[in-house]
Amino acid sequence: MSETVKYLLSEDRIPKAWYNLAADLPVPLPPPLHPGTGQPIGPDDLAPIFPKAVIEQEVSTERWIDIPEPVREVYRLWRPAPLIRARGLEKALDTPAKIYFKYEGVSPAGSHKPNSAVPQAFFNKQEGITRLATETGAGQWGSSLAFAGSLFGIEVEIYMVKVSYQQKPYRRALMETYGATCIASPSNLTQAGRDALAKDPNSNGSLGIAISEAVEVAASRADTNYALGSVLNHVCLHQTIIGEEAMLQMEMAGDQPDIVIACTGGGSNFAGLAFPYIREKIKGSKVRVIGVEPASCPTLTRGRYAYDYGDTGKLTPMVKMHTLGSTFMPPGSHSGGLRYHGMAPMVSHVKELGLMEARSYHQNECFAAAVRFARAEGIVPAPESSHAIKGAIEEALRCKLEGRSETILFNLSGHGHFDMQAYTDHFGGKLIDPAFNQSALDTALSELPNIG
Amino acid sequence: MSETVKYLLSEDRIPKAWYNLAADLPVPLPPPLHPGTGQPIGPDDLAPIFPKAVIEQEVSTERWIDIPEPVREVYRLWRPAPLIRARGLEKALDTPAKIYFKYEGVSPAGSHKPNSAVPQAFFNKQEGITRLATETGAGQWGSSLAFAGSLFGIEVEIYMVKVSYQQKPYRRALMETYGATCIASPSNLTQAGRDALAKDPNSNGSLGIAISEAVEVAASRADTNYALGSVLNHVCLHQTIIGEEAMLQMEMAGDQPDIVIACTGGGSNFAGLAFPYIREKIKGSKVRVIGVEPASCPTLTRGRYAYDYGDTGKLTPMVKMHTLGSTFMPPGSHSGGLRYHGMAPMVSHVKELGLMEARSYHQNECFAAAVRFARAEGIVPAPESSHAIKGAIEEALRCKLEGRSETILFNLSGHGHFDMQAYTDHFGGKLIDPAFNQSALDTALSELPNIG
Repeated sequence: MSETVKYLLSEDRIPKAWYNLAADLPVPLPPPLHPGTGQPIGPDDLAPIFPKAVIEQEVSTERWIDIPEPVREVYRLWRPAPLIRARGLEKALDTPAKIYFKYEGVSPAGSHKPNSAVPQAFFNKQEGITRLATETGAGQWGSSLAFAGSLFGIEVEIYMVKVSYQQKPYRRALMETYGATCIASPSNLTQAGRDALAKDPNSNGSLGIAISEAVEVAASRADTNYALGSVLNHVCLHQTIIGEEAMLQMEMAGDQPDIVIACTGGGSNFAGLAFPYIREKIKGSKVRVIGVEPASCPTLTRGRYAYDYGDTGKLTPMVKMHTLGSTFMPPGSHSGGLRYHGMAPMVSHVKELGLMEARSYHQNECFAAAVRFARAEGIVPAPESSHAIKGAIEEALRCKLEGRSETILFNLSGHGHFDMQAYTDHFGGKLIDPAFNQSALDTALSELPNIG
Repeated sequence: MSETVKYLLSEDRIPKAWYNLAADLPVPLPPPLHPGTGQPIGPDDLAPIFPKAVIEQEVSTERWIDIPEPVREVYRLWRPAPLIRARGLEKALDTPAKIYFKYEGVSPAGSHKPNSAVPQAFFNKQEGITRLATETGAGQWGSSLAFAGSLFGIEVEIYMVKVSYQQKPYRRALMETYGATCIASPSNLTQAGRDALAKDPNSNGSLGIAISEAVEVAASRADTNYALGSVLNHVCLHQTIIGEEAMLQMEMAGDQPDIVIACTGGGSNFAGLAFPYIREKIKGSKVRVIGVEPASCPTLTRGRYAYDYGDTGKLTPMVKMHTLGSTFMPPGSHSGGLRYHGMAPMVSHVKELGLMEARSYHQNECFAAAVRFARAEGIVPAPESSHAIKGAIEEALRCKLEGRSETILFNLSGHGHFDMQAYTDHFGGKLIDPAFNQSALDTALSELPNIG
C-alpha cells in the first residue's frame, strides 16, 4: 500500500521571482554568435522574432526576475505543483533511500512546459504581437503554447515533428481544441521545410527542422513572433519556478536532497528543477545533480561541446553547447521531447564547469521503470520523465547496495496520458531500442561550424 | 486573458468523514429487492460479492461515516481538489453570473472515480480479498479501480463496454499499465456475456451487460469480490468528499451557490457534489440542484421511476430508480460514462422528492460547450463533464438575459485527455447526435419487472 505524502504550498508562497543562474556562474556563458557574421549578437538581432522583455531576460545577469502578476494568476490554475514522497516506490525497491518527486503533470497541458509558455504569451501580448509560431516534438510544448495562446488571445501556429505528428494524433487534437493550428514538419509551407523534403521526402522530421520552419515564418511576418520551448536562457529562467517551489517544499518535509535528477532534452525541465540547487552547489553545498538522456540521442554524454546552430536550416544564432551536430537525425523514439541534437547552452556550461553529471538509458529500460513507478505511486509518467525515474531508481538501488539513506529528488515533468500507445508497444514487445549510429554522429560533427 | 482564481484547502482540511444523505431524507429510500424472491434483501444477500464494511455503508443511516486514515493518505495524492472561479468563461459569456467549478480531473486516473475506488479497494483488502471484478464504460471507473488495486496489491479484472473498448484503446492501456486485465464486454468468459452474444453477436455492449459479467465472476469465486463505480449508496457516499470540500472552498471564496450542476450517468459525481447541498436544501436553503444527462440516454428526463434490475442479466437486486429498462440499449456515444439505463436509487429518490431538477442535451452542443470552456479556462473536459458545462453555460446565459448575478457551481468531473478522438470527430463534423429511439424505450419499459 502506498503511503504517499504530498507537500503542498499555499498559493501565496508561489515564488514571486524566477531565479537566473547567470548571476552566480563562476565563469560567464560564452556569447551567442550571429549565424551569418560569426560575431557576438546583440539584442537588436533578436528583435525581429522575440519581444523586448524576453530579449532582456535572455541576456540578463540579474539574480531575480519578477514574475508579472498576470502570469502568476495563470500559474495559480495549477501551481504550486505538489512535491510527493514516493513511499510506495521506496517500499517496492526496499531501499533505505528517501525518494521525492516534484510533479509537473498537474498543469492543464500535462507537463512543465506551460511554466514558460504562459510568460512568453504574456510578454508577446504586452508588446502587441497577435501571432506566435513555434515547433514541437512530442507535442508537450505545442499544446502548452496553444493553451497559453488561448488564454491571452494570441493565434498559435505549430510545426510538429512528423514522427510525433503521426504517433500522437491526440496531442494534435489537444492543440486544435485550444484553437491552434498544427502542421507536420517538414512541411512545404516554408523554404526550410521544402529544403528538408528535397533532401529526404520521407523525412521523420526533427526539432532542428521544425525550429527552422517556425523561425522562418516569424522572421517574415511583422505580426508574428517566435517562441521556443527549451534551450534558451529565458526558458530555463521561467522553469526555475519548479526548483524554487521544490526548495520550499523540501523544507516543509524537513529534508534536503543529496541527489537531484531530471531528464534532459533541450534542458528546460532539468534547468527548472536543478538550477536553484546548482546555485547552492556553487555556494558549497555537496548536492549531486544528474541529467538523464536517451541513449539514442545522447547529447551530453556523447556530443561535442562546441558552437553550433540550434536548427537544421542554420537560421538561429550559433551557441556553445553540447551537440550531436545540427545535421544529426535522431532515430524516432517515443520520447519526442528529448529528440534534440543540442542542449541548453546554460546546461552545457554547467556540465563543463563540473557542476552536474550526465548519463543515458535505453527506452525500454525507461518504460520498465515507468511501469514500476506507476504501479507503486499511481501516476503514469510521460516517456521523457521516465528517464528521470530510471535514474532515481538506479541511485536508490545503489543506496540499497551501500546501505546508505540518501535523499533523492527527481522531476516528474509530465504525465503519460497522451503516450499510451508507447506503453501498449512496450507491453507488446514492439518498442525497439534504436541503436546509436556512431558514423552518422561522426558525419554530423564533421559538419559543425568552424568557430574559434 | 484568464483571471482564474483557485481556492485550495490545506491538506489537514480534507474532510475526515463522508456525508450520508440517508440520515436526512424526509422519506426513507425504498428497499432493494432480491432478484429471485422479490423480497427486501438483507446484508447476507450481498456478502458473497461485497466486503462487510461496504455492506454496512450501503444500508447505514448514520449521518457521518469516518474515512479510514489509509484512505485519506491515498486521497492526499491529489486531494483537496481545487475549486476554481471560471472568470475566463464568465468574460467570454459576458454574464453577470459568477461561475465556479470543482475540478476532479487532478486525480491520477483523471476523474472523480478514485474517490470511491480507493476506499473500495481498501475495505476489500482489509477483509482478505485478493481479486476484484468490475465493469467500466468509458474506462474512467476501470482505470480508477486499476489504480487503487495497484496501490493496495489487489488484482483487478475489468469488463469494458465493447464500444468504448474499441473507441478508447488508451484507457485500456492505462488500466494495463496499472497491472489490471481488461476484457471487451460482452465476452465469452461468462454466461451473461455468452447470452448477450447469442442475442446479438455484434453487440456494442452496455454497462448493464458488463455489470452482469463482473457480478457473475465475483459470485462464482471466493477470492473475488465485485466493485461498482456508481449507482449504489456507498459509492454516492464516498463521492460526497467532493461536495464537502467544495462547501469549505465556497466559504473561502466568500460566496454560496444559487445553482449546483453536475452530469448524471449512474449518479456518482452528481451525488458527490450535490448531496451536501441537498442536505442544506432539506434544512431550508433555496439552492437549485440540476442533473444533466445525454439526450440519447435520458434516464431522469424520460425514464420511469420503478423497480428494475441494475444489469441486463438480472443478477443484481432490483432497486427503485429512474430507468429506461434494463434491456434498453443506449446508442454508442462518446460519453460512455453516461450510457447507463438506470440511475442511483438515492438520486432518483431525491428527484421524486422534488429536491433536484433534470435536463438533457445532445452531444454536439455539449462538445461545443466543452471547446468554449477549454479556450476560456485552459482545461479540456471529459465528454461526460461537458454536459455539466453546457448546463452551467445555459444558466449563465439566462442570468445575462435576466440581468441577475447568480452564483453557479458545477462539477468538472474529469479531463478529456483520453477522449481526444471525440474532439477530433466533433471538429471534423463526424459526431452524430444519436436520435432517441422511443419505440425501443417503450419495449424496454414493457419488460420491467412487475413489482407492486
